[in-house]
Amino acid sequence: MAENLNTHTTSPLKIIPLGGLGEIGKNTWIFQYNDEIMLLDGGLSFPTEEMHGVNLVLPNIDWLIENQDKVMGMVVTHGHEDHIGGIPYHLQRLRIPVIYGPRLALALLGDKLKEAELLNRTELVSVGPRSTVRVGKYFLVEYLQNTHSIADSYTLAIHTPVGVVIHTGDFKFDHTPVDGRKFDYQKLAEHGEKGVLCLISDSTNAEVPGFTPSERSVYPNLERYIKEAPGRVIVTTFASSVHRINMLLEIAQKTGRTVSVVGHSMLNMIAKAKSLGLLADFPESLLQPVPVTNGLPPEQVLVLTTGSQGEPMSALTRISKGEHRQVKIKTGDTVIFSANPIPGNTISVVRVVDRLMQLGANVIYGKERGIHVSGHGAIEDQKLMLALTRPRFFFPCHGEYRMIRRHAQTAREMGVPAENIVLTENGDVVGLTPEAIRIVDKIPAGIDLVDASRSSMVNDNVLKERQRLAEDGFVAVAIALTPQATFAARPQIAVKAVARSAETRNLEDVIRTALVRAQERFGEFRLPGEAGEPEQYDWMAIRQLLERTVKQVIREMLQSYPLIQVLLQTPQVDSAAVLPSLPPVRGEAEALLAP
Amino acid sequence: MAENLNTHTTSPLKIIPLGGLGEIGKNTWIFQYNDEIMLLDGGLSFPTEEMHGVNLVLPNIDWLIENQDKVMGMVVTHGHEDHIGGIPYHLQRLRIPVIYGPRLALALLGDKLKEAELLNRTELVSVGPRSTVRVGKYFLVEYLQNTHSIADSYTLAIHTPVGVVIHTGDFKFDHTPVDGRKFDYQKLAEHGEKGVLCLISDSTNAEVPGFTPSERSVYPNLERYIKEAPGRVIVTTFASSVHRINMLLEIAQKTGRTVSVVGHSMLNMIAKAKSLGLLADFPESLLQPVPVTNGLPPEQVLVLTTGSQGEPMSALTRISKGEHRQVKIKTGDTVIFSANPIPGNTISVVRVVDRLMQLGANVIYGKERGIHVSGHGAIEDQKLMLALTRPRFFFPCHGEYRMIRRHAQTAREMGVPAENIVLTENGDVVGLTPEAIRIVDKIPAGIDLVDASRSSMVNDNVLKERQRLAEDGFVAVAIALTPQATFAARPQIAVKAVARSAETRNLEDVIRTALVRAQERFGEFRLPGEAGEPEQYDWMAIRQLLERTVKQVIREMLQSYPLIQVLLQTPQVDSAAVLPSLPPVRGEAEALLAP
Repeated sequence: MAENLNTHTTSPLKIIPLGGLGEIGKNTWIFQYNDEIMLLDGGLSFPTEEMHGVNLVLPNIDWLIENQDKVMGMVVTHGHEDHIGGIPYHLQRLRIPVIYGPRLALALLGDKLKEAELLNRTELVSVGPRSTVRVGKYFLVEYLQNTHSIADSYTLAIHTPVGVVIHTGDFKFDHTPVDGRKFDYQKLAEHGEKGVLCLISDSTNAEVPGFTPSERSVYPNLERYIKEAPGRVIVTTFASSVHRINMLLEIAQKTGRTVSVVGHSMLNMIAKAKSLGLLADFPESLLQPVPVTNGLPPEQVLVLTTGSQGEPMSALTRISKGEHRQVKIKTGDTVIFSANPIPGNTISVVRVVDRLMQLGANVIYGKERGIHVSGHGAIEDQKLMLALTRPRFFFPCHGEYRMIRRHAQTAREMGVPAENIVLTENGDVVGLTPEAIRIVDKIPAGIDLVDASRSSMVNDNVLKERQRLAEDGFVAVAIALTPQATFAARPQIAVKAVARSAETRNLEDVIRTALVRAQERFGEFRLPGEAGEPEQYDWMAIRQLLERTVKQVIREMLQSYPLIQVLLQTPQVDSAAVLPSLPPVRGEAEALLAP
Repeated sequence: MAENLNTHTTSPLKIIPLGGLGEIGKNTWIFQYNDEIMLLDGGLSFPTEEMHGVNLVLPNIDWLIENQDKVMGMVVTHGHEDHIGGIPYHLQRLRIPVIYGPRLALALLGDKLKEAELLNRTELVSVGPRSTVRVGKYFLVEYLQNTHSIADSYTLAIHTPVGVVIHTGDFKFDHTPVDGRKFDYQKLAEHGEKGVLCLISDSTNAEVPGFTPSERSVYPNLERYIKEAPGRVIVTTFASSVHRINMLLEIAQKTGRTVSVVGHSMLNMIAKAKSLGLLADFPESLLQPVPVTNGLPPEQVLVLTTGSQGEPMSALTRISKGEHRQVKIKTGDTVIFSANPIPGNTISVVRVVDRLMQLGANVIYGKERGIHVSGHGAIEDQKLMLALTRPRFFFPCHGEYRMIRRHAQTAREMGVPAENIVLTENGDVVGLTPEAIRIVDKIPAGIDLVDASRSSMVNDNVLKERQRLAEDGFVAVAIALTPQATFAARPQIAVKAVARSAETRNLEDVIRTALVRAQERFGEFRLPGEAGEPEQYDWMAIRQLLERTVKQVIREMLQSYPLIQVLLQTPQVDSAAVLPSLPPVRGEAEALLAP
């Protein structure tokens, strides 16, 4: 399927990132040739600080829904959340006939689909190193083993009518991978020889000089700290890092420590890895439940736990607050953070560190300790990728703007001409032919915010309302008017989450007084009626007057901007009819309205 | 006043940190001997992520208010906000007869007091290097020049009846200070020779190995980047960093660039520094307003701006959004971040960096560029302080727990026995005698949250409400009942900031239906009455039933936890009287209630 680079084809290949450009997260790719679409990855991302009450963020796929018929299938590169976490949500609205992916990624995805009862919505097909799969008429995808922080991760060589496109997935060049599965340098080089039209490459560490050290490089440091620990050792790392877990299990064995695992995602990952044969061979007795290891001498115990990012509900965070039922910190414990805080998580992490120390633990953390390495390649890794693949065109991805830009600079240093490089945003439609690469169109690339309850979407309006409520609270005023435009009862006022002071103590009284004064004006809104007919009022105008009155009083008294909600119970407001249309309240309305 | 260390005195000196321990911020110290109190510094701190709508955080000074009579005066170490920002607020409630401090600190403080019309509430007395001031009967304070990021900063040697206490203030050992005012090593050593009972020392960089480089060390790097910049240069740094500003002005002069300053706090600081003779000598023509430099060739322009921490309202952030009226980014601009992001600000900063790059600027930022150094001493600086002062007792401060703890470890390595070291929290009362140091008591050390409107306090309740509203929004239900316990009008329901889905579309109808059903039970709450008398109801019970009903429906339908506000307009609820007590609504009530 690989086309000679000089062949002229009329149709360009369209490559559209829906997520992952200008951000780290929700990687979602659309490859379109003629009337067929292949999807690559479907991740989620995590909310920013202003996204109150939002659990996760998805790319909006309305465009894909409109183009549903074209979707032939999806290929997945690896099992990280920012590559597979969105798929269960998309499958609720979008049909994806088949999803190809590594075994670990599909095992993790399968769990999510099973929980959401969506397993019957697609076909999951596992692949291995050098597997080749066809998606629709135009796409033939080769799975090339790569190295990353999660096991079973792949770089994809996508054969298309215009040429070969290599999508790196997430990668680093780890020459001594813990599981022995080396990056398929040979296939990369072979493609570079035969001709790679375009390289789409991971920009995460584009600003970091040098090579990213091998996963193995943390082994001696971890071993030393664990050996030197006088008592129990508690280690936290990313739950998805099977390589790290394997090393820790080996070190535990070597240092005579039995291992307990706490934290749902860690337990789940280890079970998955074990069932897929990705966990190294260990005697059954190495892993024991916490009640067992709690009964052992502490120097014979290693606890593996979630919470390396200070996540509020994680095991380690709860341990640091003394809230974990099974694991309590004792003086003599050593806690090791085999992970670095992702930007935005620094404060959460150091709070956990402080609490653990206050409980008496010795805490080992920080970049200079050599107990964590990134899963993404640095500048020299990125150069090696360019050197092996020798692409004509370059498409940096998986990064924020400064990372994308720096990666492009690296490519230029490697000899790729500037006009052969695209810097894109989510939604840009990149047209690729053997002769040129450029942005040819744009599709909507919005976001959907999933509420903490995980069952609803948070739209822009709701988000703005939440931000307003968070800053300034709200004031709710309930007013009931009779058909004669008098107060049916005393207006009720609720003030919540508003900072008060002595000066605003009588806010509620001031509002009521203003309402009474406003009522003096209701006569202005009486509508002309037949003699002998009951009075009619312009209820809409009365409502507006009351709302304005309430808002004015609050603004003047509070100097802040709470959300103001006036709940007006009036006779029908959408017409001038006297009889209100009420839900079946059985007779009271008539009784009330009797003149 | 310095006592021989072996003299036995009956009264201990009490040292109480109200802020600054277990945190970086709101440094506030109470020194008490017998019935007299000397305050040291009065800072503020900045809100954490969960403190919605809060502008700044103060230590609660209720205990000081109760002990008002004892307060003899305050000494201030330097003009940073976390040392003087709280004083204007405290002065609204607390009388502080006199405040001694460096000229720059008091000039900045004086501005705040003037703006708040509090200048007449205290006496501001400036001091200089080796000034000695008396506070009350028991405290004699020597001001020792030190080096820090802000100019005019001091370490204090406090002579007390129990001995000499050295409070470092914030410090580093900068041997080549930009303003030539060296740390008073000689006085420190002299005190160390004569005998320092206790050292209270800045722990900020206690985990950083080595020495903090001199402020001057950034000069050659800044000079090089500014020289190499092909067009206009925009530099951001901390507004309070007069040393950095002086260097930048000098470099601008050397490289033939005219300087414009944008950002209120930067303009203010430069004006203050100039008026106090802290700004180096520059020709008047060096500083020009932006409209002037906008007309010069860009390679002859340097703009100095606020916003080094990505602060939302700062000049540079607005420039990065294209929202600044006078300064617009053009391709060829170089933006230099002469500051490092404080933990918690990383995301804000990189967003600004990304936007500036997208607008076409070349952005220079990051630790490895050598364009910023900390104002706080690292481990070797802290050891030098211990070596010069040779204190008997050690009291680490100004840091989060892990920093305090690490600083204590450094002191132990220097030979201070563990029992001579106190690790404290805000509110701990430390008793110091020539023989011992230990925590003897505890006073309340709460916080006051100042609302974004700056005129009100946000109490704990309000904060919790805001957090709830931010996460899940609110539902307000307005119900008006007649004295016959029927609905006076159709209940009104407002749902705000709640994530909705198809399933919850008819939430309002479901609520109304549930209310109607609840009304069927009102008969249970009729109170026995005299024959011929109007019916009476247990309104409190009816209210509770309605609230429960509403809450139940919402919980079941939404699976989230919005704040629920039921506004019940019923006849009087605090007694069974038939006639409601209403505010003067002039006659409607009677008309309504007529049988």
